[in-house]
Amino acid sequence: MTDLDAAVGLIARGTDEITKLEELEERLELGRPLRVKVGFDPSAPDLHLGHTVIINKMRQFQDLGHTVIFLIGDFTGMIGDPTGKSATRKALTPEQVQENAQTYARQVYKILDEERTEVRFNSEWLNALGSAGMIRLAAKYTVARMLERDDFETRYKNNQPIAIHEFLYPLAQGYDSVELRCDVEMGGTDQKFNLHVGRQLQQHYGQPPQVIITLPLLEGLDGVQKMSKSLDNYVGITEPPGEMFGKLMSISDELMWRYYDLLSFRGNAEIAALKAEVADGLNPRDVKFLLCEEIIERFHSREDAVAAREEFIARFRQGEMPEDIPEKTLETGGDGIGIAAALSKCGLTSSNSEAFRMIQQGGVRIDGEKVDDRTLQLPPGFSGVLQVGKRKFCKATIK
Amino acid sequence: MTDLDAAVGLIARGTDEITKLEELEERLELGRPLRVKVGFDPSAPDLHLGHTVIINKMRQFQDLGHTVIFLIGDFTGMIGDPTGKSATRKALTPEQVQENAQTYARQVYKILDEERTEVRFNSEWLNALGSAGMIRLAAKYTVARMLERDDFETRYKNNQPIAIHEFLYPLAQGYDSVELRCDVEMGGTDQKFNLHVGRQLQQHYGQPPQVIITLPLLEGLDGVQKMSKSLDNYVGITEPPGEMFGKLMSISDELMWRYYDLLSFRGNAEIAALKAEVADGLNPRDVKFLLCEEIIERFHSREDAVAAREEFIARFRQGEMPEDIPEKTLETGGDGIGIAAALSKCGLTSSNSEAFRMIQQGGVRIDGEKVDDRTLQLPPGFSGVLQVGKRKFCKATIK
Repeated sequence: MTDLDAAVGLIARGTDEITKLEELEERLELGRPLRVKVGFDPSAPDLHLGHTVIINKMRQFQDLGHTVIFLIGDFTGMIGDPTGKSATRKALTPEQVQENAQTYARQVYKILDEERTEVRFNSEWLNALGSAGMIRLAAKYTVARMLERDDFETRYKNNQPIAIHEFLYPLAQGYDSVELRCDVEMGGTDQKFNLHVGRQLQQHYGQPPQVIITLPLLEGLDGVQKMSKSLDNYVGITEPPGEMFGKLMSISDELMWRYYDLLSFRGNAEIAALKAEVADGLNPRDVKFLLCEEIIERFHSREDAVAAREEFIARFRQGEMPEDIPEKTLETGGDGIGIAAALSKCGLTSSNSEAFRMIQQGGVRIDGEKVDDRTLQLPPGFSGVLQVGKRKFCKATIK
Repeated sequence: MTDLDAAVGLIARGTDEITKLEELEERLELGRPLRVKVGFDPSAPDLHLGHTVIINKMRQFQDLGHTVIFLIGDFTGMIGDPTGKSATRKALTPEQVQENAQTYARQVYKILDEERTEVRFNSEWLNALGSAGMIRLAAKYTVARMLERDDFETRYKNNQPIAIHEFLYPLAQGYDSVELRCDVEMGGTDQKFNLHVGRQLQQHYGQPPQVIITLPLLEGLDGVQKMSKSLDNYVGITEPPGEMFGKLMSISDELMWRYYDLLSFRGNAEIAALKAEVADGLNPRDVKFLLCEEIIERFHSREDAVAAREEFIARFRQGEMPEDIPEKTLETGGDGIGIAAALSKCGLTSSNSEAFRMIQQGGVRIDGEKVDDRTLQLPPGFSGVLQVGKRKFCKATIK
């Protein structure tokens, strides 16, 4: 395998689509650092592992000697919602933009090489365009082509309003690529259309069109829905090592390989070797340990990773409970109590309905045994460790 | 009739549409000078009477005590054709804009009262909008509503490209009304959509919507097609008095009343009185004289108007030919010659086909008698004054 094949293989890993692969190969062969742009929302960032998929890919480009452009889309951020309909999309001040950029920096430089990262703000050239420049830019694209974008097409057909400025945003984003003379732009699959506008505008301006790489959304810990805060299936990159370790160990073995592709910096060959070992009988948990450690090392330190692994092993693998489990005696007047009520009274769930939901999701254990029956009664005289999720415990005694 | 009724009657005369008449009445009753905007193309102006229809209407507003805004659309003029497809729509320099504005001024102040005219350039506020301001403006209108404009709708349905900046121009024009806080905007019927955008934007910005007055295109001297240079059916406002008089006397009586409505500053009552006199037997030519004199006085002087009338009467009404008619002898070898060939050989038409066309249009006379038969033969020995149109003569002798 040539260096080029290896580079392409690494870049392609886990991606959704590359337009066009042969152009990527041509650019990689140019022998100069490529300019790889990724746009980021300027609103206050608080990253979880889902966000890092694309940042990892940027890092892979850096490792191959290329320059990544961390582009902060402050031009539109400082406009806010110009229709005035969304109270939550307030216009940011330049100070807020700078502050958010600092917050980004603190987080992303745990992954990116600062030396090979160009942080840019698109207000620099988009403000300078002026209103006449904006009109000249808008002249470069047709209404019909813009209406081909999936969401525009659907809204237009369903008579849902599309404000005209929404046609200008993809052009502004595309113009960023012209201004930055990008070789590559990466984004989520939802960005595909906008990234193509960049390609087309570059050609209008006499530049070779950028290679487009789209990346999938990372599945959350449940392995089904995309990772997001609101679904509470995420791992935040500032979470403590123990939390990270526990959460990541809870994923399925299948999802683990997905996470390896999108979150690990191990090479393709190394991952293939791990898969072979598992096929030969290695316990997948040991491979999961490696992934946990790599991620914790990235956001904390090697020592934290080792300690988190040891704590986890001590707690779960060897069957030990944490040392500091609280105890609670529930007075039932000799009637006993339902499992859901018991969980709530012990403070492990905030309500009976949450308790029922946790049981349904398989997240409730008694003395390490999973509870499947949400109507289970705990009789007087019962005593045992109730557990919700990986980390909430209570030793309950029923009277 | 109240003053208000008289004012509304004068303003409404000859217009295509007023949106809305009751709003116009309300504004007129406010008792303050209204702000009446008309937009003009900043490219080199050379006005004919067709252009003056709207300027006359501006003057009527001035006569009623209102302020007119002569708005020069230099913002888009300085952009030119941003698609780069039209070589003829070159971007104007600020110097050219100023020069053209001077040329406009020389011409329009023959009609407008300079004291009550506010000359403005929309680059003043449209450049100041900046690119962010342009986006905010574009957010105020939807794609679907813009596609309702007749020509956009047709082009979209026929898969003819509409560049996105074409959606921004009506918004920019509408924003002019916001910036200028217009009470009234006037334009050609082709401007109706854009004028309505102004109404809608003003409401977005918390202003009462401007009254819209659309004016028809003036028919040319033929009474059929719109007046235009390329159709050679126009009267330029810098033409010499004699030319103006001759051209205007050639229009039909019906067209004369149309011209009274659109080109005369006589009041409605006065025009009604003239119509009554003609119905009572007054020769329409005398009424046409009045129109010719009014227009020549406007662009030249009272003396020029009187002199032009006297010359015209001397030449045509009293049956006299101009003194300096050229003479020509046509050698036909005793065969005689067709009328069309004779006209061409005398240099009165540039070709036989033009001669046929002139005969068909009733524009050819022999010794003052109209020629209807295009196959008419002039026998050897014929001698008479051939005439094409009002001003071309030749005394021909056939041998």
